[in-house]
Amino acid sequence: MKLHHFLFAGLVAPATADPLPSWNETAPKQAIVAFVEKVTTAGSDDFVPEAERIATFDNDGTLWSEQPMYFQLFFALDRIKALAPKHPEWNEKEPFASILKGDLKSALAGGDKALIELVTATHAGMTTDEFEKAVTDWISTAKHPKTGKPFNEMVYQPMLELLAYLRANGFKTFIVSGGGIEFMRPWVEKTYGIPPEQVVGSSGGLKYELRDGMPVLVKLPEIVLNDDNVGKPVGIQRHIGRRPIAAFGNSDGDFQMIEWTTAGKGARFGLIVHHTDAEREVAYDRESHIGKLDKGLDAAKERGWTVVSMKDDWAKIYPAAP
Amino acid sequence: MKLHHFLFAGLVAPATADPLPSWNETAPKQAIVAFVEKVTTAGSDDFVPEAERIATFDNDGTLWSEQPMYFQLFFALDRIKALAPKHPEWNEKEPFASILKGDLKSALAGGDKALIELVTATHAGMTTDEFEKAVTDWISTAKHPKTGKPFNEMVYQPMLELLAYLRANGFKTFIVSGGGIEFMRPWVEKTYGIPPEQVVGSSGGLKYELRDGMPVLVKLPEIVLNDDNVGKPVGIQRHIGRRPIAAFGNSDGDFQMIEWTTAGKGARFGLIVHHTDAEREVAYDRESHIGKLDKGLDAAKERGWTVVSMKDDWAKIYPAAP
Repeated sequence: MKLHHFLFAGLVAPATADPLPSWNETAPKQAIVAFVEKVTTAGSDDFVPEAERIATFDNDGTLWSEQPMYFQLFFALDRIKALAPKHPEWNEKEPFASILKGDLKSALAGGDKALIELVTATHAGMTTDEFEKAVTDWISTAKHPKTGKPFNEMVYQPMLELLAYLRANGFKTFIVSGGGIEFMRPWVEKTYGIPPEQVVGSSGGLKYELRDGMPVLVKLPEIVLNDDNVGKPVGIQRHIGRRPIAAFGNSDGDFQMIEWTTAGKGARFGLIVHHTDAEREVAYDRESHIGKLDKGLDAAKERGWTVVSMKDDWAKIYPAAP
Repeated sequence: MKLHHFLFAGLVAPATADPLPSWNETAPKQAIVAFVEKVTTAGSDDFVPEAERIATFDNDGTLWSEQPMYFQLFFALDRIKALAPKHPEWNEKEPFASILKGDLKSALAGGDKALIELVTATHAGMTTDEFEKAVTDWISTAKHPKTGKPFNEMVYQPMLELLAYLRANGFKTFIVSGGGIEFMRPWVEKTYGIPPEQVVGSSGGLKYELRDGMPVLVKLPEIVLNDDNVGKPVGIQRHIGRRPIAAFGNSDGDFQMIEWTTAGKGARFGLIVHHTDAEREVAYDRESHIGKLDKGLDAAKERGWTVVSMKDDWAKIYPAAP
């Protein structure tokens, strides 16, 4: 797979090559490199042993795009259309009825409650193996309505380079996303080089049972972790068990993750991706319904978090098409 | 730390040295070595890529001893004694009253419900940092009532060798234990070489909040995962996100973990440690209240799981005292 090859190319490049070629020579790149050199220099006051070099990344809006709506929602809508023939009651019931009529705006007017209902209705009852197959099939065929690209090609080239750069410097890279953990795991290893066991996300209940004598895990319509806002430090502690030294996000949903990370002792790094590029991507922040960034923009200044302006600091947004 | 040094010694030993010197030359050792050679031989039908070499280990009774009661319970009892002056009501309330009178038998007569109440009462309300310190202090000072050893020296030397052997062959080793995840994490890295992010265990709720402007995670009196029996495959999926190819346990609480592991496609390995050594440790199985092994002993024969007789198959039980 092309992305995969691209991603790992950085690891075998000569040490003198720029590990972050898609980053302009502006403050964010300098801050990243200074931090990594500081924590990896043996004998330095800021040195951090390799085992403690934990870096966490939000996914939607930080590693890949999230407009006009979270990509997992496109998956859920496609599932609803596929499952509709078996659910005639959906023709009368919101948010399903609006979706089936193609009226997404009305469907999403129900806010987070409608979203959770959608995701639950389309995910629950499947075994984890069935769900993994559904995601794998979808990600390999679905296209973004505006760009026409496969969704997993709408990942940010500078962030792919950053992930590889951190790993080449002994970091363990984790995803910590409000998105569904089982939705991300089937494709993030190929796309980002992050294995399933380093993915933290919103999680539903699971039930172990035997079907025809074979054990399966069935997805339940209940949420055991809402991995957003205050849920992110909880997810980090639950899954990783130690505090990251670097955290990367883009919205107020990442605020507590970055706060938790940077409040620890020793050298710490917090970074916010600010969507400022209306031409190459989408420009949005304080007023956006998806990926709202308001509190975080103000906090970044006060707390010394690095803010990346996609327009000014990134030479490139997406990887070259395969 | 001595255990730590010992543990990693295997990794730098010459390839010709026996990686499992504390295992007798009996069937279990041969089965382990045959499995590892099979899945690591490139071109073999049974070859498994390194990323998929996931091995899960129960802790109590599999990596360290668990008699006369789970070691975490000794920790909880010591916490109750330490906290009792602040809880005068415990003098009247079971199971606390019996514990404070030194009558452990009556205290534990309440079964699992009493156990959970004990653990909850002594763990909840603390921040994760405070709890980690309490565990770290306890494990470095407390001694087992019968052997007089520190609890973390009552680990099984053959299993330390097995962990190192698997890792030297590209496996990622995980703990999947009914014990508390936060109780294990502070010491398992030094003792077993397993980092906190590779520990799955029973987990309580956590709440993110600010105290004097600093973020903390507070332990809540609720259980979000009972990582035992059917909870083990659930914990594996939630934390690891892929099915192990090898699983190691000792009691019926590990049954579903081994079943789930060995039901996968391709080469699989399931192993049960059978406590048969009354002289060097404790002999118990079908009738034991702690670590009951009944269903698993029968299933092992039918399903081709390896059973280790501690008496016959292990040349050594514990590491040499430091």
